Amino acid sequence: MPLNPADDAFAESLRRALPDDRLRRAEPRYLEEPRGRWAGGSGWVALPRSADEVSTLIRAAAKARVGVLPYGGGTGLVGGQVAPGDTPAPLIVSLERMTAIRAVYPQENVLVAEAGAVLADVQAAAMAEDRLFPLSLASEGSARIGGLLATNAGGVGVLRYGNARDLTLGLEAVLPDGQIWHGLKRLRKDNTGYDLRHLLIGAEGTLGLITAASLKLSPVPAATGTAVMVVESPRAALTLLSLARSQVGEALSAFEIMHRQGYEFLAETLPDIRRPFDPAPDWSVLIEVGLSAGLDPAEALEQLFADAFEADLVSDGLIAQNQAQAQDFWTLREHIPEANRRIGAVASHDISLPLSAVPEFIERAPGALAQVGSFRVNCFGHMGDGNLHYNIFPMPGRSRADHVNQAEEVSRVLHDLVHEMDGSVSAEHGIGRLKVDDLQRYGDPAKLSAMRAIKAALDPEGIMNPGAVLPPAS
Amino acid sequence: MPLNPADDAFAESLRRALPDDRLRRAEPRYLEEPRGRWAGGSGWVALPRSADEVSTLIRAAAKARVGVLPYGGGTGLVGGQVAPGDTPAPLIVSLERMTAIRAVYPQENVLVAEAGAVLADVQAAAMAEDRLFPLSLASEGSARIGGLLATNAGGVGVLRYGNARDLTLGLEAVLPDGQIWHGLKRLRKDNTGYDLRHLLIGAEGTLGLITAASLKLSPVPAATGTAVMVVESPRAALTLLSLARSQVGEALSAFEIMHRQGYEFLAETLPDIRRPFDPAPDWSVLIEVGLSAGLDPAEALEQLFADAFEADLVSDGLIAQNQAQAQDFWTLREHIPEANRRIGAVASHDISLPLSAVPEFIERAPGALAQVGSFRVNCFGHMGDGNLHYNIFPMPGRSRADHVNQAEEVSRVLHDLVHEMDGSVSAEHGIGRLKVDDLQRYGDPAKLSAMRAIKAALDPEGIMNPGAVLPPAS
Repeated sequence: MPLNPADDAFAESLRRALPDDRLRRAEPRYLEEPRGRWAGGSGWVALPRSADEVSTLIRAAAKARVGVLPYGGGTGLVGGQVAPGDTPAPLIVSLERMTAIRAVYPQENVLVAEAGAVLADVQAAAMAEDRLFPLSLASEGSARIGGLLATNAGGVGVLRYGNARDLTLGLEAVLPDGQIWHGLKRLRKDNTGYDLRHLLIGAEGTLGLITAASLKLSPVPAATGTAVMVVESPRAALTLLSLARSQVGEALSAFEIMHRQGYEFLAETLPDIRRPFDPAPDWSVLIEVGLSAGLDPAEALEQLFADAFEADLVSDGLIAQNQAQAQDFWTLREHIPEANRRIGAVASHDISLPLSAVPEFIERAPGALAQVGSFRVNCFGHMGDGNLHYNIFPMPGRSRADHVNQAEEVSRVLHDLVHEMDGSVSAEHGIGRLKVDDLQRYGDPAKLSAMRAIKAALDPEGIMNPGAVLPPAS
Repeated sequence: MPLNPADDAFAESLRRALPDDRLRRAEPRYLEEPRGRWAGGSGWVALPRSADEVSTLIRAAAKARVGVLPYGGGTGLVGGQVAPGDTPAPLIVSLERMTAIRAVYPQENVLVAEAGAVLADVQAAAMAEDRLFPLSLASEGSARIGGLLATNAGGVGVLRYGNARDLTLGLEAVLPDGQIWHGLKRLRKDNTGYDLRHLLIGAEGTLGLITAASLKLSPVPAATGTAVMVVESPRAALTLLSLARSQVGEALSAFEIMHRQGYEFLAETLPDIRRPFDPAPDWSVLIEVGLSAGLDPAEALEQLFADAFEADLVSDGLIAQNQAQAQDFWTLREHIPEANRRIGAVASHDISLPLSAVPEFIERAPGALAQVGSFRVNCFGHMGDGNLHYNIFPMPGRSRADHVNQAEEVSRVLHDLVHEMDGSVSAEHGIGRLKVDDLQRYGDPAKLSAMRAIKAALDPEGIMNPGAVLPPAS
């Protein structure tokens, strides 16, 4: 049975159940996603101020069989935050008024934040206590904690500090029946029953709505060093990664790979961004180390470069001599997605592979792609995590419009190869609505059947983020 | 409806479905647990050699409505591996023949092991490739990977490397309907649907049976240093922990607290164990650091001691001058549980608290305990994780038999205090059968209701480890 829309009558009934000023008609920003793939028609947005209010909303939605669409910063790239216009309008629940940093416990390395807190604000609150909240990604100025946890966000700090789920000690959340789970534990060890925390993290709002989290902080490394090194090949990059780990251990905090195509797109669309090598190298890696007191990062990077040069892994390299130069290297890396947007991708892929299979994938993928047509490839990303953004562009002189009918086939052949090589077709962005079919195609059948059983058990009416992650129950 | 027993007729039907030599009558070791709390009457034990055979067993059990008791190394301390004699005998499934290290990928820092592999063998296989598998606990010579993951084991490496769940990238498991989940991914990032891995880890075999795991390895620290320092109080220990973190960051790999009572029990029961201070200090901490190349651990520990002495946190200390001395310190720490066993505890507690609440708990607990009677307390454990083993003993001249009727009340007043202070009544041992009532008493109602719904959805007949974690459905 289809859900009911969040219509004016439903909104009116909610209005009576909540304090003033908690509901308004959704402005366009709640109805679109960053790449313009989905645009919902209209709807109501609720702006609760507490978990109790979220509970009231969800109980009402469950009773009326109305969908609930959790909304964080709106930065997701797989459509998890936007309902298609042709489905019954869900109630959008934005956490933007629940932005409190409830507490910081420097001695415990713990911070408790509400789900609407913006990532950059959480980072700043930690830094004010001389601690690091190491989740870091391009959208950190607008992405909110609730969405980051619901999608188990990744980013550039995963190599050292893990994904969003690894940084979470406890959650407060409202379950699909409206019950509030008071799980804001600040414990490093707590083996009391099933790990509901990890079940909700990464479930993209389909099993409940996260309202607050207790988050792990880390010590700030005493000194940080950054370098860009030119590698002969992805295989050399992999060996360099091993060498770096054997020399600095867990102090290796980033290892990002970049292809020449990224430099060229930057030169074309954002020429003011400083590029460290000219001509652009085929392959280069951005390396960051954060070391304990008593060690000199520049020295560690010089040693790494010397040994790697000796082993024919690298042919050139620049070690940042100051903070500004380090920032330049990061600015280059972080503007690749914007350059990609300006060029206009035929298809984008957020894939991961077993680390040792990354070079082979990069060798084999062009052959798979050639079955579909001629394209340019910009391959970059979190090499240290085995996570590549493998994005496909038209040849010079052509545009994405010329390939619109090939996009699906492009993704199909690449995802088939990823799957064959034991990789993942969604490394860090999640399933949302974009990859529901991919999950059905590539997902393990036993896991999918367990997922359906869990969804039906916790959300029997299917009100939570309907259509995301799993196809609606028929 | 109660389950059916795994009787001779059921065993005979299984025998026909499996290769030769997979079933035998359970010897006593499968029917007892280490502290002698439960002893099941009789039963059959299955010894499968593959996930397919486990699947056959579980399908047969599901069809016949017979309970399945997953059995690892048998070292669990909460009775998760032993069915009480007064319930229908389950089929015991021991993974002891599935001990293969299927593969080691040094470049990826990944090792794939079958669930029956003994922890010490996994550590050795990693070390053979110059990698560290950092899960480490007293029973590592007999505990098996499957049980360690099913209970999300902790131990002495958690401070730096996390719990068992944090060391697991993927699982192969048989679900309660007999489906095999092929989830042995070696990926650092994989956001494709609900995290079944974290749901099975810590579920103590009640949602499925783990048959293999892909595990994270770490670089071996270049140099390790060990010290024991005498602290003025638990509060001073907490400040020392903060100081150590600010000086060596994540390189701090262990921070264990010990009370004088532990030294005295060792002197009484295991006098050959070397004790570093005489007379025994009221409170001391064992500290281990594992540093990157270029740093001297002894120097780092000397610096820490000097600064802590200056700040009146420590009054005495010994820094191991060689491997043998470091081993002596660890031998002391690791024999405290054995000394406790020889003295004979009235009640043992595996609790955790928010780190900053640990000193207050240690201050308040004796007052709570005094409501019940006069006891000796041996408080020791993983201070860095906020995890204390808070064990209660008779006064000199009395025995545990004198207090047998008070054990429950002792645990009740201590667990009530832990709960009031936002702690956990099972930090690392799990719920098993021992703490089923505690979980019902202290667990969050919304979480408990979600747990029941998940259990009913994945295991509708309740065959998997019946009576563990959750009370049987009535």
